[in-house]
Amino acid sequence: MLDPAGAAVQTGLQHLGYDSVEQIRIGKYIELSLQAETEAIAREQLDQMCDQLLANPVIENYRFELEAVAGVAA
Amino acid sequence: MLDPAGAAVQTGLQHLGYDSVEQIRIGKYIELSLQAETEAIAREQLDQMCDQLLANPVIENYRFELEAVAGVAA
Repeated sequence: MLDPAGAAVQTGLQHLGYDSVEQIRIGKYIELSLQAETEAIAREQLDQMCDQLLANPVIENYRFELEAVAGVAA
Repeated sequence: MLDPAGAAVQTGLQHLGYDSVEQIRIGKYIELSLQAETEAIAREQLDQMCDQLLANPVIENYRFELEAVAGVAA
């Protein structure tokens, strides 16, 4: 996929003398916390959120990592 | 730090019915490959690149992870 912002930043780095950078890609980073009963439910919700709003699946890929935090026991 | 984009996306998620999302922050994600003699040199270069160009230290935090890839032996 094209990444004009990445190409511009690579040029900027070269102008600053960082010639060792060979490839650069720029994307979005999103950190969120959500409540879910199980990890499977959390995964399913995240997948849907990414497809519906957080990413544009036509031109973007996405991946996510889950991290459990202390929850409130029922 | 304020994150108006994050607030807007949280509102959007709520409108779509994702009420379980409690907090969301949006930032940039940059993936780059560079050549360096040692890991210490790579870290130093990355720190400088982040301070000088990749991040705006006045309003942004940054962190990075290094991952070794197969290199060309001298």
